[in-house]
Amino acid sequence: MRTQLLLVLAFLPLASLATGQQQPQLNLMPMPSTVQLGTGQLLIDRSFSVAVTGFHDASLDRGVERFVAQLSAQTGIPFRPKLGAANATLSIHADHGREAVQKLGEDESYELVTTTSGAKLTAPTPLGILYGLQTFLQLVQPSATSFAVPAATIKDQPRFPWRGLLIDVSRHFIPLDVLKRNVDGMAAVKMNVLHWHLSDDQGFRVESKKFPKLHEMGSEGLYYTQGEIREFIAYAHDRGIRVLPEFDTPGHSRSWFVGYPELASGPGPFKIDSGGPDSVTDPTREETYKFLDKFVDEMAKIFPDAYFHIGGDEVNGKYWDANPKIQAFIHAHGMKNNQDLQAYFNQRLQKIVTKHHKLMVGWDEILHPDLPKTIIIQSWRGQESLATAAKQGYSGLLSFGYYLDLMWPAARHYAVDPMSGAAATLSPEEKSRILGGEACMWAEWVTPENIDSHIWPRNGVVAERLWSPQEVNNADSMYARLNALSLHLESLGLTHRSARMRMLHRMAGTEDISGLRVLADVVEPVKDYNRWDDAKGPIDFHAPLTRMIDAVYPESEVARHFANLVQAYIQSGFKDQAAEAQIRTYLTTWRDNDAKLHPLMEQSFLLHEVAPLAENLAAVGGAGLLALDYLDKSQPSPESWKTQQLALVDRAKARNADVLLMVAVPVQLLIEASANPARPN
Amino acid sequence: MRTQLLLVLAFLPLASLATGQQQPQLNLMPMPSTVQLGTGQLLIDRSFSVAVTGFHDASLDRGVERFVAQLSAQTGIPFRPKLGAANATLSIHADHGREAVQKLGEDESYELVTTTSGAKLTAPTPLGILYGLQTFLQLVQPSATSFAVPAATIKDQPRFPWRGLLIDVSRHFIPLDVLKRNVDGMAAVKMNVLHWHLSDDQGFRVESKKFPKLHEMGSEGLYYTQGEIREFIAYAHDRGIRVLPEFDTPGHSRSWFVGYPELASGPGPFKIDSGGPDSVTDPTREETYKFLDKFVDEMAKIFPDAYFHIGGDEVNGKYWDANPKIQAFIHAHGMKNNQDLQAYFNQRLQKIVTKHHKLMVGWDEILHPDLPKTIIIQSWRGQESLATAAKQGYSGLLSFGYYLDLMWPAARHYAVDPMSGAAATLSPEEKSRILGGEACMWAEWVTPENIDSHIWPRNGVVAERLWSPQEVNNADSMYARLNALSLHLESLGLTHRSARMRMLHRMAGTEDISGLRVLADVVEPVKDYNRWDDAKGPIDFHAPLTRMIDAVYPESEVARHFANLVQAYIQSGFKDQAAEAQIRTYLTTWRDNDAKLHPLMEQSFLLHEVAPLAENLAAVGGAGLLALDYLDKSQPSPESWKTQQLALVDRAKARNADVLLMVAVPVQLLIEASANPARPN
Repeated sequence: MRTQLLLVLAFLPLASLATGQQQPQLNLMPMPSTVQLGTGQLLIDRSFSVAVTGFHDASLDRGVERFVAQLSAQTGIPFRPKLGAANATLSIHADHGREAVQKLGEDESYELVTTTSGAKLTAPTPLGILYGLQTFLQLVQPSATSFAVPAATIKDQPRFPWRGLLIDVSRHFIPLDVLKRNVDGMAAVKMNVLHWHLSDDQGFRVESKKFPKLHEMGSEGLYYTQGEIREFIAYAHDRGIRVLPEFDTPGHSRSWFVGYPELASGPGPFKIDSGGPDSVTDPTREETYKFLDKFVDEMAKIFPDAYFHIGGDEVNGKYWDANPKIQAFIHAHGMKNNQDLQAYFNQRLQKIVTKHHKLMVGWDEILHPDLPKTIIIQSWRGQESLATAAKQGYSGLLSFGYYLDLMWPAARHYAVDPMSGAAATLSPEEKSRILGGEACMWAEWVTPENIDSHIWPRNGVVAERLWSPQEVNNADSMYARLNALSLHLESLGLTHRSARMRMLHRMAGTEDISGLRVLADVVEPVKDYNRWDDAKGPIDFHAPLTRMIDAVYPESEVARHFANLVQAYIQSGFKDQAAEAQIRTYLTTWRDNDAKLHPLMEQSFLLHEVAPLAENLAAVGGAGLLALDYLDKSQPSPESWKTQQLALVDRAKARNADVLLMVAVPVQLLIEASANPARPN
Repeated sequence: MRTQLLLVLAFLPLASLATGQQQPQLNLMPMPSTVQLGTGQLLIDRSFSVAVTGFHDASLDRGVERFVAQLSAQTGIPFRPKLGAANATLSIHADHGREAVQKLGEDESYELVTTTSGAKLTAPTPLGILYGLQTFLQLVQPSATSFAVPAATIKDQPRFPWRGLLIDVSRHFIPLDVLKRNVDGMAAVKMNVLHWHLSDDQGFRVESKKFPKLHEMGSEGLYYTQGEIREFIAYAHDRGIRVLPEFDTPGHSRSWFVGYPELASGPGPFKIDSGGPDSVTDPTREETYKFLDKFVDEMAKIFPDAYFHIGGDEVNGKYWDANPKIQAFIHAHGMKNNQDLQAYFNQRLQKIVTKHHKLMVGWDEILHPDLPKTIIIQSWRGQESLATAAKQGYSGLLSFGYYLDLMWPAARHYAVDPMSGAAATLSPEEKSRILGGEACMWAEWVTPENIDSHIWPRNGVVAERLWSPQEVNNADSMYARLNALSLHLESLGLTHRSARMRMLHRMAGTEDISGLRVLADVVEPVKDYNRWDDAKGPIDFHAPLTRMIDAVYPESEVARHFANLVQAYIQSGFKDQAAEAQIRTYLTTWRDNDAKLHPLMEQSFLLHEVAPLAENLAAVGGAGLLALDYLDKSQPSPESWKTQQLALVDRAKARNADVLLMVAVPVQLLIEASANPARPN
């Protein structure tokens, strides 16, 4: 029972969690920098009340109201609006206000002390209060007597001041209600920057009054008005989140050219759909800079953040190579190559950004000694380029390793540390230039319907990497807390779990989708950029994303659990009967599932492509059961049988319908083990 | 396969569905008055487009936009906004506009013709168009090649012009976003009246500028502003739904007295919480009518509907009996009793309602020959009082039998027909006075979190009863279509399914709730008003509704399915092996579930009370399995064993934690059958 666990823990030496070991399983993500468990717990019942005793303003008051509403949603207790109560259960004290425009590096620390008689949350500013309230919400659990929060003293502050999530809204437009719930999720895991990738080849998503053809011709009607943007920024600010706009240039900018083809380095006419001519911005025309000056002026007034992201990545030089005037310009100005031309463009653009009182952020490729040290380099290439920048005196952000669209398991993102690799060898001063990082949700393959499940819960581990001490790195603990976070996020309004069910129902067209769910539970999308290759032609950004690959989670929890069971069973010398029983249950379900799925697969075109997967899963299930039978009898399985089964597993490992059957490898281990069942432990 | 089914059906005589037999299983609810299936199907793909060719206005345009958005949500196809296309897939034609304020009895008919090459929806007014679009959405299913709609000719109009849902927002306040999604659900099943029960003892929910103490002191801050109400009425109007306000008086009106104690028949001070003094309105003071005159004047301007509901039910005479001045008034005016006094009150109130250009609606009790025939009687007592009213020339609505808070199974509501019982013997003219009915969601035991699951999907069968021909009454067909409707409603934004899962997660405090779900799947809340009795004292309307009874569905689909299997198995003379296998699977799961649930039940206080249920379910599962063993061996089970098992089943039938284990009775049938396994088929 939970309370006993806490009592036992309370007698342990009160060690900082930063030591990495002995982490108690509080369902916190990100893990605070220090947690000291006390004795007993604070009951959360109808008498719960909150008092704000120090500084407060309308934004903090709204934050406290949201906290009470969320606590009510979690517990089902209809708290009555009684915020200023004396002897409140939770007393909140902020020393002073926060910046009107949230700044990089503001004090985000807080201290939360919970005892059996009450809780006290203190922080220098409302920012820390917002984070402390999120910690409090994550601590609430049903206990044997009531909802409760364990007695504890938490002193917490982030490891890095810049903890971001990039959301690409160009490739697929993401409406504001979807962005808002994702901002709620970011706030829950203490991220503080939404990097809004607002333009790319496939869409320009911001209303421009100075250049209305940008959104009118470059968005198919799917863009945010300036009023909506202001309201959204206020929404994010209330939640302690800065909004960093990115307008990618000179590459990734076809959508600008639909309305303003004169900006392009090559001939149009351009269109949003792929298939027509492509291009990059022409850096040789003075009109380009006049345009950008007016444009940055307009956008700088809409986006209050101190930083302005100009993109700068993946400029395809072939469009400059193909334009004789541009080549002439390069020669006339003594430049050696296209890189020099991009550096020239960036310097011009940097001056414009500075003129409009912003600091420039750009991707790796903009790094050039002629640019001032105030810019920030965002690395998508690796810690190497981050370290290079830091050595040259530039600040940097890590995004390499945090690309959520690559469909990596959470543990792989979790293992990526901004201070590892080349960055580990930096001097303390150089290290201080690494400001944090950003997870990236590139939107080639997501829609408003499934973007939540591509971001969450995995984004929680990037948030933890950027907030918690470097030593908090145990993957088992992470996965246990990630599961709790996943549930918590759904209660906040995220749809990463419910959307999967809706999509499976759509595929099946029927209520009973138990068989489909068994299959969906054990597959994952193909990894990295393997969904598409150039041989398939350009991506069709208007295609429905309604296939199995679109519905399933990037990481299969069932496959992870199954692999752990197989590992435990093998490591026990095939003696762990509980593990074997669970393995058998899984394998039997899989073996029998194909027959169950057949009527559905025939009925719906959306399921035709998963037939080989269902067949392979049945085969793998059957093979695994036979392997267990050999192991139970302690008889080596025959060589010919083994060869045959391994061939079958190999087929099952191949991609089908662009997804991977994640349980094939553990079954392969069982088959291999069955050839030598007497193997010592 | 669906397409083949349709082809076969196309060769059958094209019979009107009103004949009741041979209903094809199109997932339509309510079933249209006539459906003629054609040959083939209309594919729904990216090329889908809509054209509005006849009358249109902004409201219809919004309706078409919602339709396209919903079709996109159902199919996952990102349709591009291309509404006016020539050769559109779906062509829409309304002859003329609808009333600015929706009227009782407006033409609601439509005709929808779908062929392999396109669809045509025609109607006299946009009301019929709205209904036809809902029919179209329900027809869309994945087929073997694409999403598709079967070729068909549907001519449809409602059986009754008044098809309502009452939502009580007094006992528990229901916010507008929750009401809006329920209005969306009503539109999906072609209901056309939201009866808004806005005041009762426990809360007065409308802002009154003339009498601000009504909402300020009578609502605990939980009320709708007049602006919100106007916006909500416009929302409902867009969806073809009238909003009928009810201000219940002279009974059920304690909330008025908190701010205006002079309206009461007895002394205060009054408060919203139960426990203090109670009362009813004093009908003897002239000031009461002056108050009501101003009040109705104000409300009549906010609520545009032609009708105004004054409640009038359950007036507790003891407060009039106890007041000597009221008794003196009764004698002075030659009245015989309290009923006469209420009739006097109603007549006075009716004149006020008329003065402000409204027609009065009230519950059964207001029926009195002195009231004009323009009023409508809403019957909560039965078809008897409806018939009585109709004979006297009054119009009526049936709500008896449609109380969703009584936790009845859908089939029981479905069997209640406004024209049955006493109403069946009425003359055609008298029958024409029966305008329809209303489902009622009284809110003693619902919150914004679980109200959807108390209304849906069961409300669909009341909607069908009121829309479809009387002969559409096959319960098996209804249940199959109700399951499809349930899924459809979730895709519209209702939360009747997802909320249950969230609530179970809350109870467990953990991710894995499979054991809890097994239990939740086979229980139902106690029926009628058995949750509470006077011995328990007044209901605490501020208590959290977070127990098992609050989370589970009013009707258990698993229990219904299990009972059907047991029936099929017994009727087959115990030869139906497929049924037996499924029965065994259920019973085994139940037998083993108690052990699985134990850790959860110990951990969370919200689960303590379900321990006896889990134990009983295990016992019932074990007993059923033993009964099957006897039946398999064709050996009569021993009498002593049978007696013992039946005692156990009896215990399992008793209520625990205010819920009922719905699978005990079918297991009892198995045990009884096992005593005589050779029984002829």
